[in-house]
Amino acid sequence: MHVVVPFAATEPKTRLESVLSPVERSAVARAMLADVLCAVVEAGHEPTVVATAPFDLEAELTVDDRVLESVSVVVDDRPLTEAVNDRLPSAEDDDPVAVVMADLALTTPETLEALFAHGDDAEVTIAPGRGGGTNALVVRHPAFRVDYHGASYLDHCAIARERGLRLETVDSFRLGTDIDEPEDLVEVLIHGNETNCAPTRLRELGFELETQDGRVGVVRVGESTQS
Amino acid sequence: MHVVVPFAATEPKTRLESVLSPVERSAVARAMLADVLCAVVEAGHEPTVVATAPFDLEAELTVDDRVLESVSVVVDDRPLTEAVNDRLPSAEDDDPVAVVMADLALTTPETLEALFAHGDDAEVTIAPGRGGGTNALVVRHPAFRVDYHGASYLDHCAIARERGLRLETVDSFRLGTDIDEPEDLVEVLIHGNETNCAPTRLRELGFELETQDGRVGVVRVGESTQS
Repeated sequence: MHVVVPFAATEPKTRLESVLSPVERSAVARAMLADVLCAVVEAGHEPTVVATAPFDLEAELTVDDRVLESVSVVVDDRPLTEAVNDRLPSAEDDDPVAVVMADLALTTPETLEALFAHGDDAEVTIAPGRGGGTNALVVRHPAFRVDYHGASYLDHCAIARERGLRLETVDSFRLGTDIDEPEDLVEVLIHGNETNCAPTRLRELGFELETQDGRVGVVRVGESTQS
Repeated sequence: MHVVVPFAATEPKTRLESVLSPVERSAVARAMLADVLCAVVEAGHEPTVVATAPFDLEAELTVDDRVLESVSVVVDDRPLTEAVNDRLPSAEDDDPVAVVMADLALTTPETLEALFAHGDDAEVTIAPGRGGGTNALVVRHPAFRVDYHGASYLDHCAIARERGLRLETVDSFRLGTDIDEPEDLVEVLIHGNETNCAPTRLRELGFELETQDGRVGVVRVGESTQS
């Protein structure tokens, strides 16, 4: 299975701007990408990062050699939908393709294996995210095309229906948790593996869990030294 | 397995007050409870609703007779932690006990079956919710006790560790989605079964999905007639 990981190499994660500077957002986005790539490789696949701009894997990601050797990078500055559609199964090459978002910081090899193995007879398998997003999907039929604008999960269900394709949904909290907003950082600190890049980077930046009024949030204790 | 469903019978769902009147919040909370109870019964169990106040199941819930006959109600006005702890396995009765929150509107019989069957050799199994909550759990050992205040998921991990109990986590988007805030209503409209009570009730109250700036929210089209 081809595994594609789209990545916004410049100005990523703008919705975190209230708590992170541009340089820090870039660092956290790369840490999450590293965690996703490690999980894909551990699940036995060789992912392709589809980056919006040139991007030096070795210089920018803290991953070991085995992961580096398994990952390739291509640059495609088109909008996400076009860049992904160009890499889905076609009449010429109908090998299954998985598309895994780069901000799924809670991803584990096990959750990916379950996604990849799920519904061998489904032509499209989706792990939905909050708010109707499509956080990860597997496409096994050349008639399917993505549309990431808006409520992509509902759009993808409609596209599959129109084209007579069987779509299945994978029920995963980990794959359903994309890290977009400051409150999402809580999930990285609670559920991220301690040795992973993203929780480590967030802790280095001074983030820690805080319980207030019976609810859990993050608080930033250290001051930013990167701007 | 005993299945306990705690329910705040009076003034439920206060964090929805910006979009729903007290009467409406009560109706939506009861609709979600009905959906949870139906899923538990379809999964083959006879749930006990532990309500904070007297509560007439037949009059207040729209469920069929088979469900009504399978559900019992007890009133316990103590805080959630105490009311649940009193019903967990004990030295006298160590049958496993599941605790399923009443606002898990995306619950299906299949997700519950997976939770109940997960980790037969685990002494505690948890389906975490966003923000470190404990949305559903199964307790198979009399040494475990809950503490729902604060980051209960982390507290429950710590309690299990201290007492030498094996804890496993269930990875479920559906069980991980409790309906607390206005933005959570999106999930009910996107993923709730159309014939379920909660999506039906929300649509009756005028809620529908709205896509704006590429993100999905809910908008209330109809005016409230209940205050």
